Amino acid sequence: MKHEEKIPYKIYLEESEMPRAWYNLRADMKKKPAPLLNPATHKPMKAEELAGVFCDELIEQELDEDTAFFEIPEEIRNFYKMYRPSPLIRAYCLEEKLGTPARIYYKFEGNNTSGSHKLNSAIAQAYYAKKQGLKGVTTETGAGQWGTALSMACSYLGLDCKVYMVKCSYEQKPFRREVMRTYGASVTPSPSMETEVGRKILEKHPGTTGSLGCAISEAVEKAVTSEGYRYVLGSVLNQVLLHQSVIGLETKTALDRYGVKPDIIIGCAGGGSNLGGLIAPFMGEKLRGEADYRFIAVEPASCPSLTRGVYAYDFCDTGMVCPLAKMYTLGSDFIPSANHAGGLRYHGMSSILSELYDQGLMEATSVKQTEVFEAAEYFARIEGILPAPESAHAIRVAIDEALRCKETGEEKTIVFGLTGTGYFDMVAYEKFHDGMMNDYIPTDEELAAYRAKLPKIE
Amino acid sequence: MKHEEKIPYKIYLEESEMPRAWYNLRADMKKKPAPLLNPATHKPMKAEELAGVFCDELIEQELDEDTAFFEIPEEIRNFYKMYRPSPLIRAYCLEEKLGTPARIYYKFEGNNTSGSHKLNSAIAQAYYAKKQGLKGVTTETGAGQWGTALSMACSYLGLDCKVYMVKCSYEQKPFRREVMRTYGASVTPSPSMETEVGRKILEKHPGTTGSLGCAISEAVEKAVTSEGYRYVLGSVLNQVLLHQSVIGLETKTALDRYGVKPDIIIGCAGGGSNLGGLIAPFMGEKLRGEADYRFIAVEPASCPSLTRGVYAYDFCDTGMVCPLAKMYTLGSDFIPSANHAGGLRYHGMSSILSELYDQGLMEATSVKQTEVFEAAEYFARIEGILPAPESAHAIRVAIDEALRCKETGEEKTIVFGLTGTGYFDMVAYEKFHDGMMNDYIPTDEELAAYRAKLPKIE
Repeated sequence: MKHEEKIPYKIYLEESEMPRAWYNLRADMKKKPAPLLNPATHKPMKAEELAGVFCDELIEQELDEDTAFFEIPEEIRNFYKMYRPSPLIRAYCLEEKLGTPARIYYKFEGNNTSGSHKLNSAIAQAYYAKKQGLKGVTTETGAGQWGTALSMACSYLGLDCKVYMVKCSYEQKPFRREVMRTYGASVTPSPSMETEVGRKILEKHPGTTGSLGCAISEAVEKAVTSEGYRYVLGSVLNQVLLHQSVIGLETKTALDRYGVKPDIIIGCAGGGSNLGGLIAPFMGEKLRGEADYRFIAVEPASCPSLTRGVYAYDFCDTGMVCPLAKMYTLGSDFIPSANHAGGLRYHGMSSILSELYDQGLMEATSVKQTEVFEAAEYFARIEGILPAPESAHAIRVAIDEALRCKETGEEKTIVFGLTGTGYFDMVAYEKFHDGMMNDYIPTDEELAAYRAKLPKIE
Repeated sequence: MKHEEKIPYKIYLEESEMPRAWYNLRADMKKKPAPLLNPATHKPMKAEELAGVFCDELIEQELDEDTAFFEIPEEIRNFYKMYRPSPLIRAYCLEEKLGTPARIYYKFEGNNTSGSHKLNSAIAQAYYAKKQGLKGVTTETGAGQWGTALSMACSYLGLDCKVYMVKCSYEQKPFRREVMRTYGASVTPSPSMETEVGRKILEKHPGTTGSLGCAISEAVEKAVTSEGYRYVLGSVLNQVLLHQSVIGLETKTALDRYGVKPDIIIGCAGGGSNLGGLIAPFMGEKLRGEADYRFIAVEPASCPSLTRGVYAYDFCDTGMVCPLAKMYTLGSDFIPSANHAGGLRYHGMSSILSELYDQGLMEATSVKQTEVFEAAEYFARIEGILPAPESAHAIRVAIDEALRCKETGEEKTIVFGLTGTGYFDMVAYEKFHDGMMNDYIPTDEELAAYRAKLPKIE
């Protein structure tokens, strides 16, 4: 094995090397992401308009385009120390098996009980809610990673946590639900009869198994109609990407320690929380002209917002109760085919990433799910870690890039984000093993029909 | 929070500090553990008699009472680097919540895809099987940790892996089964019709949901009747405790770095793999008169081999095809009540630990399962890690000892083994949440009945 003696299998930072501030990528963007709009007036949302939905300090973070660094409060840094730094792993075994001259690294965010990177933002959002003296928070969860993370964070801080879980996940992932219960959260299958918007959706689509967009609507309604509650979200928002920058900052410090400069940085992209956090400090260098990198966003072919969506203002949720965001979107009604396994099923994409992609600073590609599960199983057998299906999207493209290096002989350095563990996705793996998985991809006609329903904003 | 600045939340060793040799505790024992006996002749088993069942080098390790250190082959050390060193975590949050002056540390072995410490011995046993040119190995698994670990190790080395999984676990833990399948293992519910012993047991007890002792018998039969196969076992054996010494060695190096000397070392005990590994180097010091420690083995009140068993020769398996071992045992027919959740359900205990306990060098205590799950949930909410029910036995007693320190004001240092994650035990947690868990403990009459069937050895 070509084990470079100076570079260990796993690079762990010292606690003293852990980031003390989050990095706000927007500060270095010349053309900023488009602002959120009030769905009624189509004017940019002001802090006071958001105050009923989000916590005050999080609104500041959401709207601040200029401050490059936000200090991480000590209590959050202490919580981070419970499960961070996460390891940056040199994929020596994978490199050897592929016979590639490429050097592959991955930042593994799955070594915590929530099983993914979502905890990085969950503790931050819960912290500011607590600081504001709130009783609790509401949220939605699809695959369950975000809900689990939030329930852990709330339990730690003694906050109430109310999760609307997309009904099909609620039924297919009883263990996820049970973990949230262990952490004291209340979990409701969505759509539910608890909210006005839930009742409306159930009336219109009695048999529906729910969607993320619909669960968001319910969680927002619950927050704004409950005294002492606010709504929190695990992806898409600027504040989430800000908190997730801890992933990229740690990655960069670890690589810098060994003088390693990546050529390609790859991440899976649903709403953009992981990808946005992983690339942040590297993209910052690129924006400031200090370095150049290739960035690749990988999305499912069954939910291709960047590669087949349009860049336009759209609703963030199905119930249309949220502000409008400018983003690459498939339309807020879009739901991936029932056969689609794993997460990355949001109809839109973070405004920051959408803008970077639109400016040509980042590439995007889509992969079919059977190819993704093939890569997942291959990786698990070689590197030991059983990946979440979402993370395996990045693995797929990292392997493909490494194989390209094998053809050309280039010794590129590839870094990808391994966002989580697949422990709670064994139903999907089973489907894959049993040959019950297909690669359905939406037709152009289907996408056009969703697109036709986009709101008209001049 | 009383964060001692010099001691981080998590101590990770450098790769260069990782153990290069396993430590064989028997070398320092004046009175050695009793040898395995041939069940027919009642004479000590010789290497050649074991050769049909176990791999040759593992037999050497099994029988060697004198060599203190066995070098860890480079290939195993490389595999260890994929998921080790495991963190030694300072439970700052737990200490604060308990308000105890005690200092609590735990060695967390759950941060790998198999979810437990079992991988430490799985890769070693698979390695020697591969080295011997075998086609594959057979084994049994109860809760599923060992089977998962072995399937990962075999997949890495390209060995065939055949797992007999206790039928009730096979049915209740489909996700465990699916992880093994992801790693290419074949998994058969036990008892099965595939073996002579399985058919016999099914004939006698048609509705049985199986037991560990019975799955062992099937796996051994399969190994000895298949060309190019040997049997491997995840606990109880001397070789397993040897491999697991990596846990204790890492723990000691990490504590030594900060000049910390434990007062109490606590581990859960089923067959003894984790406890034996964790305490090994510390017990070595005690045996050599260099230091003193309190060691506490924690077992379930529903399967109390140390606290209510007898120290005698007994069969290791239900089918009585294995050698006889002298150990604390409840009788090879013993099966914990159906309500018992989690592992630690073996009727006996490692000969090494049995002998140490008999010599008064180690304490033992038993805990009821609802107390265990209360401790598990409490710990999860405070320390973030959702523990396996087995590991939570040690948590329970560590908390109790820390609370005792609170009463007395003693600043004791407590170290315990957190052997694994509870991700795959959510059915048990659900039972606990729903109040469906009881604390059935075997009566003296029941235990006497099992004891009456022990083999008579003069």
